[in-house]
Amino acid sequence: MPDLIHSHSQWGPADQIGAANLLTVEKRLAALGSIRSGRVYDVSYDVYMGAPFMAPNQTPFLMSIFGSWRDTIKRRRKLGATNDAGTNLERIEMTAHVGTHIDALGHFSKGDMLYNGTPAADVVTDWGLDRLGIEHAPPMITRGILFDVAGMTGGAHMLPGQAVTPDHLKRAADSGGFSVEPGDIALIRTGWGRYFGTDNARYLEGEPGLDVPAAKWLIDQGITAIGADNMAVEVLPNPTKGVLMPVHQYSLAECGVYLIENLALEELAADRVYTACFILLATKIRGATGAPVRPVAIV
Amino acid sequence: MPDLIHSHSQWGPADQIGAANLLTVEKRLAALGSIRSGRVYDVSYDVYMGAPFMAPNQTPFLMSIFGSWRDTIKRRRKLGATNDAGTNLERIEMTAHVGTHIDALGHFSKGDMLYNGTPAADVVTDWGLDRLGIEHAPPMITRGILFDVAGMTGGAHMLPGQAVTPDHLKRAADSGGFSVEPGDIALIRTGWGRYFGTDNARYLEGEPGLDVPAAKWLIDQGITAIGADNMAVEVLPNPTKGVLMPVHQYSLAECGVYLIENLALEELAADRVYTACFILLATKIRGATGAPVRPVAIV
Amino acid sequence: MPDLIHSHSQWGPADQIGAANLLTVEKRLAALGSIRSGRVYDVSYDVYMGAPFMAPNQTPFLMSIFGSWRDTIKRRRKLGATNDAGTNLERIEMTAHVGTHIDALGHFSKGDMLYNGTPAADVVTDWGLDRLGIEHAPPMITRGILFDVAGMTGGAHMLPGQAVTPDHLKRAADSGGFSVEPGDIALIRTGWGRYFGTDNARYLEGEPGLDVPAAKWLIDQGITAIGADNMAVEVLPNPTKGVLMPVHQYSLAECGVYLIENLALEELAADRVYTACFILLATKIRGATGAPVRPVAIV
Amino acid sequence: MPDLIHSHSQWGPADQIGAANLLTVEKRLAALGSIRSGRVYDVSYDVYMGAPFMAPNQTPFLMSIFGSWRDTIKRRRKLGATNDAGTNLERIEMTAHVGTHIDALGHFSKGDMLYNGTPAADVVTDWGLDRLGIEHAPPMITRGILFDVAGMTGGAHMLPGQAVTPDHLKRAADSGGFSVEPGDIALIRTGWGRYFGTDNARYLEGEPGLDVPAAKWLIDQGITAIGADNMAVEVLPNPTKGVLMPVHQYSLAECGVYLIENLALEELAADRVYTACFILLATKIRGATGAPVRPVAIV
Repeated sequence: MPDLIHSHSQWGPADQIGAANLLTVEKRLAALGSIRSGRVYDVSYDVYMGAPFMAPNQTPFLMSIFGSWRDTIKRRRKLGATNDAGTNLERIEMTAHVGTHIDALGHFSKGDMLYNGTPAADVVTDWGLDRLGIEHAPPMITRGILFDVAGMTGGAHMLPGQAVTPDHLKRAADSGGFSVEPGDIALIRTGWGRYFGTDNARYLEGEPGLDVPAAKWLIDQGITAIGADNMAVEVLPNPTKGVLMPVHQYSLAECGVYLIENLALEELAADRVYTACFILLATKIRGATGAPVRPVAIV
Repeated sequence: MPDLIHSHSQWGPADQIGAANLLTVEKRLAALGSIRSGRVYDVSYDVYMGAPFMAPNQTPFLMSIFGSWRDTIKRRRKLGATNDAGTNLERIEMTAHVGTHIDALGHFSKGDMLYNGTPAADVVTDWGLDRLGIEHAPPMITRGILFDVAGMTGGAHMLPGQAVTPDHLKRAADSGGFSVEPGDIALIRTGWGRYFGTDNARYLEGEPGLDVPAAKWLIDQGITAIGADNMAVEVLPNPTKGVLMPVHQYSLAECGVYLIENLALEELAADRVYTACFILLATKIRGATGAPVRPVAIV
Repeated sequence: MPDLIHSHSQWGPADQIGAANLLTVEKRLAALGSIRSGRVYDVSYDVYMGAPFMAPNQTPFLMSIFGSWRDTIKRRRKLGATNDAGTNLERIEMTAHVGTHIDALGHFSKGDMLYNGTPAADVVTDWGLDRLGIEHAPPMITRGILFDVAGMTGGAHMLPGQAVTPDHLKRAADSGGFSVEPGDIALIRTGWGRYFGTDNARYLEGEPGLDVPAAKWLIDQGITAIGADNMAVEVLPNPTKGVLMPVHQYSLAECGVYLIENLALEELAADRVYTACFILLATKIRGATGAPVRPVAIV
Repeated sequence: MPDLIHSHSQWGPADQIGAANLLTVEKRLAALGSIRSGRVYDVSYDVYMGAPFMAPNQTPFLMSIFGSWRDTIKRRRKLGATNDAGTNLERIEMTAHVGTHIDALGHFSKGDMLYNGTPAADVVTDWGLDRLGIEHAPPMITRGILFDVAGMTGGAHMLPGQAVTPDHLKRAADSGGFSVEPGDIALIRTGWGRYFGTDNARYLEGEPGLDVPAAKWLIDQGITAIGADNMAVEVLPNPTKGVLMPVHQYSLAECGVYLIENLALEELAADRVYTACFILLATKIRGATGAPVRPVAIV
């Protein structure tokens, strides 16, 4: 059995938003105030049939037309309509973790415990989370800081099983000319994103990503969320035998820090944009363990 | 048969984004520059089982756990994992028009034609839209202008079948102290939103909303999108017998102007916030006819 | 807390099929040997969008085209095909309890226990039942016996909350000229089936059906399954305050006797067919708590 | 463009059941009367997550718990229930062509035409088939005849791309000691079924199966349905370049003869059971292009 996680977060026993508490209005105004050119970088990939997913816990994204202009016009004519208004509308089957998405704090447990000493048995229902669902994540408008680890290590991308370490992060911050501040959102570029949707088999086989010390280094400095251009933020497989997804456990369940996955960071890196106003507005799917999103970085 | 819509939009025959062309960088910077206090208004409702939907073309939102911490820990122990990382993850069945959402330009046809003279038969496939899907809608960061028609008409809300007219809009703009400018997003408050999720039967029975002249009045002044605190932006049933959803046809198919539905506008109205920086980031669901969203207004 | 159910069934601790053990080859041959005219009665209703379902535990049946002849022909032409073979194929979202269906033994628990002293926590996984799923139910080819209780009580149908009692059953058996024998499948006609799909609101509001003594009377005589022309076989609401679905508990969890719901029994009754060869072949959906079926009665 | 199919079937312009017209009561009584030992052979595979499916037109089978005994007991206690009745109930996402299944006559088109000169555009709606859906297929209780082609050709199984020809069928019938009679259901054993669920990649890569002349040979003799121990009954890829799924077109769209796929025929062959009473009861999913089934053969 794992150690129990600390029973209460620093934000009190009722807290459900974790490190989003660090998103102060001052932080928001500073980020917005940093905008100069108004250029918007879209840092998300599409959600679509064919997007990578991690079996067996994730299911494929399916989408198909439920109402077409042809049939809706026919039906409406029968009801007496004369203006031939045709509706196109689809049905979607998906998980909340498809494409570029954010993880809710309730997405991962350490043993039987979720974030803030919350017993999973009390809040995980058949129909989702009674607490710690993504609807609690506030709009995130803050500074984004890009750790271009891939760019720094010279190659096009790091390799599966290769950990992004605290040292990597320190050097990337130096190279980017910034230090981590509370309420920042860290964007980690491993270069692995180039295989999203272009070679899913490879993308899913393993990935470069954070190890626990790197996550801890970021979190100790007050980061609100950690995003990366890979499927799980963290290095896969984990170098420590028998340890599976420890960065998810540590960030979400122990520290209340959000994870953002499958980010598209190539354009930011190419333009050497290391700090920007980062905006992520997670659709409030009540009780969901995450949400597909379309974050942007504005400079 | 309906009249053909004009074969090409003002933005050229290849255009897929319509009035989002009006979202210039200057417009964006002006909106961002208007922010003073940094206060964020969340103008969206939750997406959840029980959210209203318009049968028969829309289906109910369903969500249930596909992977629970209990089972994932069990499975991982069998694979040799020792850190008891439990995953909670759901399956969702939905349409893109659940909760607060934006309509893609390809959502509605006029007869066989979609926006920009696009033959529906060419682009509506079994699996969604080959063109005019929501993934083409750019991030929307612009000025939002609140027409508090309900506030102006005195009651708590307008009534089903009651049209918001150009005259209503003019008076609401006067009352709010703003004029419409190109690239603005109009937010129409009818008061009907109070029944979203609290009395779905009533919410869906009909609604106050725009008539075509009101939509035309907004669009002629260069609006990019029209949002409202109801299911369909437009008045239901339409006062003209035999005419069904004409504002959808006119806005989306004829003019390339987006619609945003099920907005939560009570708080803005209560605080008399008539202009704000409005941000809507639609998840890029490839080929989808819309997307659930979480727009915000910042002052 | 409820009483524990007897820890082992009469068919041994490993048994997963319950009263289907009574479906001997002799029983089967006798039922088949009783066929004279070869006339087949279809005793099932359609499965379709609009079929009644019991919220909140059951979800609506949804079906829509995923591949159409139009698009598949287009795609195949691109691949070089010249014979224009078009496929039509749908996606279905459903529960296993839609339309005429059979309940698996693992469908109901008494507290934490399923049939045969099986701890629910051990066998109910995120993905269905590890034991007691419908795939274990053998083909059922046996004698069906019709208790035409509605016919006997004079009216077109019994009323919601009105219990079918042992006395009703005895009289209906007398009237039908049969006695219950081991391995029989009981078909209970309450007349309520006439509202299936014709007035779903009424059909679901409550129903006439078995009380526990009636179920016990049948089970004591060795019945394999109990079917009825209603949603739940049993009377709803149950006359005993605070007791919910006790016939499900008693039949499935305690006795290992199957339930068959939403049967169409009008035609059998009209033709005064009280005994017949009954055939039910449940699709082997692995781990499912039931299956939609198409049982027939042959005379 | 393909040739038009003959505008009317031999069973009249209104016919929707095709060769099921040959299932006379005499045929049924003869099949039932042939039963001696009462032994039932289950000739179906399970339907389950992991069952093979043909991308891109078929989607994977997904199943997960929607209501668990844990949560339903909790909810019912809150409503005042004292008997702790727990429900287990799942949601399923599937096509009708999963596992052992039967194809409806409307499943395939020849160009724009379905069986009996039915324009596909008239009957294929967003929500399924308005005509020729599987609900029209009557209960099938008739003689099944096993063509053990794999057994005859000596190896464990035939090979992908290897056609079962009329000559194979003639020899297999001779070897089995039967001739084809109207209303029979042909069961073709290629041996390929051994890879169903055991090596899906191989199972789907191609398959041995019927060529068009073999289908014609069967159909000319009045067969009602053709089943096989493979995914598509017919040989894949088809030996004729540019011709895709011609047996589906010929059988379903031109001749009104049903196809049954993914049959489990090993046990029948091992026991040298060449003729039997075959029973298939397709769940009446209204408008569906097929149905998963559990056919049996009884001797």
